Amino acid sequence: MIVLLFTIERAEALSTLEGYSGYGPEQGEKPLRTAIASTFYSGLGIEEDDIFVSDGAKCDISRLQMVFGANVTMAVQDPSYPAYVDSSVIMGQTGQFQKDIEKYGKIEYMRCTPENGFFPDLSKVSRTDIIFFCSPNNPTGSAATREQLTRLVQFARDNGSIIVYDSAYAMYMSDDNPRSIFEIPGAKEVALETSSFSKYAGFTGVRLGWTVVPKQLLYSDGFPVVKDFNRVVCTSFNGASNICQAGGRACLSPEGLKAMSEVIGFYKENTNIIMDTFNSLGFNVYGGKNAPYVWVHFPGQSSWDVFSEILEKTHVVTTPGSGFGPGGEGFVRVSAFGHRENVLEACRRFKQLYN
Amino acid sequence: MIVLLFTIERAEALSTLEGYSGYGPEQGEKPLRTAIASTFYSGLGIEEDDIFVSDGAKCDISRLQMVFGANVTMAVQDPSYPAYVDSSVIMGQTGQFQKDIEKYGKIEYMRCTPENGFFPDLSKVSRTDIIFFCSPNNPTGSAATREQLTRLVQFARDNGSIIVYDSAYAMYMSDDNPRSIFEIPGAKEVALETSSFSKYAGFTGVRLGWTVVPKQLLYSDGFPVVKDFNRVVCTSFNGASNICQAGGRACLSPEGLKAMSEVIGFYKENTNIIMDTFNSLGFNVYGGKNAPYVWVHFPGQSSWDVFSEILEKTHVVTTPGSGFGPGGEGFVRVSAFGHRENVLEACRRFKQLYN
Repeated sequence: MIVLLFTIERAEALSTLEGYSGYGPEQGEKPLRTAIASTFYSGLGIEEDDIFVSDGAKCDISRLQMVFGANVTMAVQDPSYPAYVDSSVIMGQTGQFQKDIEKYGKIEYMRCTPENGFFPDLSKVSRTDIIFFCSPNNPTGSAATREQLTRLVQFARDNGSIIVYDSAYAMYMSDDNPRSIFEIPGAKEVALETSSFSKYAGFTGVRLGWTVVPKQLLYSDGFPVVKDFNRVVCTSFNGASNICQAGGRACLSPEGLKAMSEVIGFYKENTNIIMDTFNSLGFNVYGGKNAPYVWVHFPGQSSWDVFSEILEKTHVVTTPGSGFGPGGEGFVRVSAFGHRENVLEACRRFKQLYN
Repeated sequence: MIVLLFTIERAEALSTLEGYSGYGPEQGEKPLRTAIASTFYSGLGIEEDDIFVSDGAKCDISRLQMVFGANVTMAVQDPSYPAYVDSSVIMGQTGQFQKDIEKYGKIEYMRCTPENGFFPDLSKVSRTDIIFFCSPNNPTGSAATREQLTRLVQFARDNGSIIVYDSAYAMYMSDDNPRSIFEIPGAKEVALETSSFSKYAGFTGVRLGWTVVPKQLLYSDGFPVVKDFNRVVCTSFNGASNICQAGGRACLSPEGLKAMSEVIGFYKENTNIIMDTFNSLGFNVYGGKNAPYVWVHFPGQSSWDVFSEILEKTHVVTTPGSGFGPGGEGFVRVSAFGHRENVLEACRRFKQLYN
């Protein structure tokens, strides 16, 4: 409700002489940048001018790819959110798609499985220029531990790699592992972070996110990455909508933070219902604890076959794991974003199907 | 006011079960796409599914550059809106900046001067893959005639080039020359068009625009450009904000169209005041008639020197023409976007300075 009031107030103000605003700073309005820095990065040495407000993490990922250009190598978690690989293909960073292994050439797929706790074995990962890393992860729902992220940062430091850390689900975490890569000492020299209001405040259609590019992050020649990113943002973007930025500021007010926390709590209850359901049916279930996604294992089965069977027999839509990369084969992702009665009904049908 | 009501209504609706909307189609909401097609392209054979709603023309220009990739050649009007060249540089399409001629290598600069009526001599223009063409032009304020655009389309057809036509100021036109490139027969096979609500409805901070990619526009191998653009839009963008799209629909209602027409009429009065002022002072003045920009010639002088003199002596900000390319040297752009009393006061000061 507070979000609504701020948004409406801003829209109304636009019709007045005093309240109208035209082109804003491409990097975002200062009060919102300040609020993001103090809400999510307090004590981590991230400052307001390290924050770039955007129309969402997905859009910033492509703007980052424009910064990186065609001549870089990149690594992704396998499975992972498809926009990393897809934008890499569009930018011309990859080789041909290899049908037999379901992978693009020149991408380092860092396999994340139950066996390795959904954290890649870095001793087997080849050095790349860029490492996309999403934690809590979409789709597996796993969040990396402090110790794992410390190893990841060290790996990037050893290799001169840049980590693009996607923390769009950080507020869903239950344990005390890092919400931000910048909780890891030394991360500011090797990492940037992208995040979003989409899953915190139901802003998927409103469009608001941000990316943190610390001024300490330099290319090997000493040039700051933030200067390139700023140039791309100013050339390819004109800032997030002023109306939506007012909504973002409302989200970060005390009342807005409370409302976001309640929304997230509600979805976490949904997550628990889904986890309990699949656990009670004897499945191996992952994720859920630190993310709104439950990652259910159907060993030896095709993700698409499982998806089709669930769809046809229960009329519930899940997401086939193989859509997130070859490492997702044999899994489906079950999302907690839904009305309670729908989640309960879906779980009743899962029980009928698998009991 | 109608825009405000629609926007607020949509923001309010987002807080209700029935009115909430999450991820929308990346291409834009169907009612808005339909309204854009019928408002701006009626009778031109452009259909709703040729329209992609965006967060502004500037953003779409970079998404188009992602479609084109690094290995294309491009032409721009000289002078022109800087985003074409800047995004081309970022994509790696260009050679080094050549300081002596103030041009990037591998870009074809199509000089537009008073002598050629601000339309390039196409017999001297080298063939390129892409031709950026803005009409009415920012900064010169000139709009190409039907005959000139017919020649441009024929030139593109002869050369297998794609025209990126920027019509962001089309509603400012006073004469009956084309508002859209698609008024020219055969354009749909060689052109796409980008436009914006920014200058029609004061949406520069709200962020809403669109791009038309006709399904008839094919690469030389017969593959539709729209399929590539759709792929880039779906990977690099998540649609314009739902609140802003509601504002866009309001703009295209009968009451909204009337309001936009009034706003544009107001700025055209500003334009006339500015043109009359510089004409009365004996300057050669261009543009204005079909655009909110007045292009004033200071032959033999540096744009930056003129800009500085005006700033220091009158405290009025103009835009140095050379910022739009070497062809803008010796000109300044005077914008009509301002409050009436400010425009009148600026003109009083111009008269004091130059009388």
